[in-house]
Amino acid sequence: MADPQARLPLTRQSVLDAHELIKPHIHQTPVLTNQTMDAMASTPQSVEALRGTVWEGMVPAKPKLRLWFKCENLQRVGAFKIRGAFCALLRLGEEREEREGKGKERDGKNEKGGWRERGVVTHSSGNHAQALALAARELGIPAHIVMPTISTPLKIAATKGYGAHVRFSGSTSTEREAMVEEVIKETGAILVPPYDHPDIIAGQGTMGLEMQGQVRRLLGERGGEGSEWKEGKEGKEGKGLDAIITPCGGGGMLSGVALACEGTGIEVFGAEPSYQDADDCRRGILAGKRIESVKSLTIADGLRTPVGKFPWEIIYERGLVKGVWSVGEREIRKAMKLVLERMKVLVEPSACVGLAVVLFDEGWRAMVEREAGERGWDVGVVFSGGNVGVEALGRLFEKEGEGDRA
Amino acid sequence: MADPQARLPLTRQSVLDAHELIKPHIHQTPVLTNQTMDAMASTPQSVEALRGTVWEGMVPAKPKLRLWFKCENLQRVGAFKIRGAFCALLRLGEEREEREGKGKERDGKNEKGGWRERGVVTHSSGNHAQALALAARELGIPAHIVMPTISTPLKIAATKGYGAHVRFSGSTSTEREAMVEEVIKETGAILVPPYDHPDIIAGQGTMGLEMQGQVRRLLGERGGEGSEWKEGKEGKEGKGLDAIITPCGGGGMLSGVALACEGTGIEVFGAEPSYQDADDCRRGILAGKRIESVKSLTIADGLRTPVGKFPWEIIYERGLVKGVWSVGEREIRKAMKLVLERMKVLVEPSACVGLAVVLFDEGWRAMVEREAGERGWDVGVVFSGGNVGVEALGRLFEKEGEGDRA
Repeated sequence: MADPQARLPLTRQSVLDAHELIKPHIHQTPVLTNQTMDAMASTPQSVEALRGTVWEGMVPAKPKLRLWFKCENLQRVGAFKIRGAFCALLRLGEEREEREGKGKERDGKNEKGGWRERGVVTHSSGNHAQALALAARELGIPAHIVMPTISTPLKIAATKGYGAHVRFSGSTSTEREAMVEEVIKETGAILVPPYDHPDIIAGQGTMGLEMQGQVRRLLGERGGEGSEWKEGKEGKEGKGLDAIITPCGGGGMLSGVALACEGTGIEVFGAEPSYQDADDCRRGILAGKRIESVKSLTIADGLRTPVGKFPWEIIYERGLVKGVWSVGEREIRKAMKLVLERMKVLVEPSACVGLAVVLFDEGWRAMVEREAGERGWDVGVVFSGGNVGVEALGRLFEKEGEGDRA
Repeated sequence: MADPQARLPLTRQSVLDAHELIKPHIHQTPVLTNQTMDAMASTPQSVEALRGTVWEGMVPAKPKLRLWFKCENLQRVGAFKIRGAFCALLRLGEEREEREGKGKERDGKNEKGGWRERGVVTHSSGNHAQALALAARELGIPAHIVMPTISTPLKIAATKGYGAHVRFSGSTSTEREAMVEEVIKETGAILVPPYDHPDIIAGQGTMGLEMQGQVRRLLGERGGEGSEWKEGKEGKEGKGLDAIITPCGGGGMLSGVALACEGTGIEVFGAEPSYQDADDCRRGILAGKRIESVKSLTIADGLRTPVGKFPWEIIYERGLVKGVWSVGEREIRKAMKLVLERMKVLVEPSACVGLAVVLFDEGWRAMVEREAGERGWDVGVVFSGGNVGVEALGRLFEKEGEGDRA
């Protein structure tokens, strides 16, 4: 990958540039609205729901919320990860072609084949694997994906289906990284990390730009009909969204969206699962120090990673994220089922943590009531992906799962 | 309802007018594309798949298909039915207000309350019930919905949730109609039929208009990038879609979309389940006579009705539908699972019959190969609704169901 330092500092302009670059390769995914969800989000939780929490006995918050769902589950490969993958590969291409072009003029023998023949490599059992595989195929570059042998057959099949060379490893990070090293030694492939690189961050952030434009257009249409929305918007100088909430695993998406919102007045929030301390970003912010490892088996399997260094800089050190909130396994399941039944779209557990915070985290809800008051907030909720097998759905919706009582 | 004769003949302009009328009340649902689906549709079926069919032993067809999925499962109430419901109620309002206004000036006593107090009534266990309930609530009109006692609790709850007065009846059409008569006698409510009325047809047809515009815009964007699409389109004078395929139950949607396509050069096809002779429209066309009753328990429960008189006129007598095709239960299940797993949207069984024809009906596929040749076809595939409970999904995806071998 390109020298990350050369990309710094990342700005909103970095995200705008990334969008121009990747636009031809990605879907502009739809933004959905749903009156039932708005009504649920704007209805105070029951007194019983707060029992056993720090909010027990208090009057449930009455936030007024209008939700705008960005459906990255309908993105290519079923997840936002394709944005970062294309951004990383296209930037790599720009840089390498320049360098190799010059190299060839000098002696032509320094490299054993150009980077396009040697390809790229990553280790991932999830959406980054499929995203890198598809982006590489589309750009004519070989992709080597190191997957733990315990990966689900569906994910292995999908990754192979996009034309990648799949290599298996043990499931610890040491074993995965050793296998990546081996692939690099064999093939000369270039490592493309899943989140901890400025080009990945800028790519994921493009989703935030799209949301801003789409919601402004949708609000404009409603306003044009003289609906309540028009008045609601007048004091906001066409800002559109008031806030965006995204899931946070490695933090690539959260930090990218935060960059996309810098200077717009849109507040950005992160959402994490709390099960087995998967909420490393939230805890890290409280402690003032990045937490470097996570060992959680939360059902939100895309969020089992600690926040990376580059995302942390944006989220915490530059303060571009207003806060990170966490929810339990039961809330994630409930949100996922609601989305499927009421909105008719399939989201993976990791994709629901933002909505789960909006509906069930009393602290966040009380904060919105206080900040937004009577006018309420227009909140963009990111559905980050939809890669969950139909067979797994039944298991997910069984009455109680591990961690539901945690 | 308005005197249906006064609305005839229905034309493309009727649908354009209906669109202006209902636009503020409905979503413009997204049109999705999916490379995996395009690839599957453009790959010949296996020789084994044709075994036991009339195509056994022949070379599988090689149609070239680009699919555009109109997601009415993401429509309000989760189905296209909201279009017809709003159209019917708004037209009823126009007509009644004129009439009652005049009546009041004369003597003011002819009516026991205005129609807005007396409300509307229908019998339906499905999407029309929810659609009418929501549209009526939004327009401030009471709605009485007669549902068979055997309706699923989810559907009853949803209909009540939209504020309707639910009345229960036996499940035969005689019992339902008797209860509707009773409601009318008690309340003076006006009957709004689910499909067999010109205002309903014009309302459902608005989906066809939207598809035309959306696909043209999406093709324009692709063309602008110098992709293969640009060349593909040049000979087509900006027509966009070549064909649209919609499910056919009572025929309101199919006939409405056919009107929306009249004179555009876009071919319109219907799709039905074949199980227990639910393909009444297809068989009626072959026999040259509308079939007036259907007794099928196909999983495509929205399509268990015979085509109505007004839709039949448009579909058959005016010849605006090019053909109606049918598929078995197994194909419907397969299509539904594919849509959920690969496209990440939830569609009900009735909504998948169009895609099932596209992927699995060798006759239709051979026809496309012949008609479209090397250039291929851009086909709009309507996902008509998404109202299926999460609990029902598991049962639907069990390996074999009744009718799979039919």
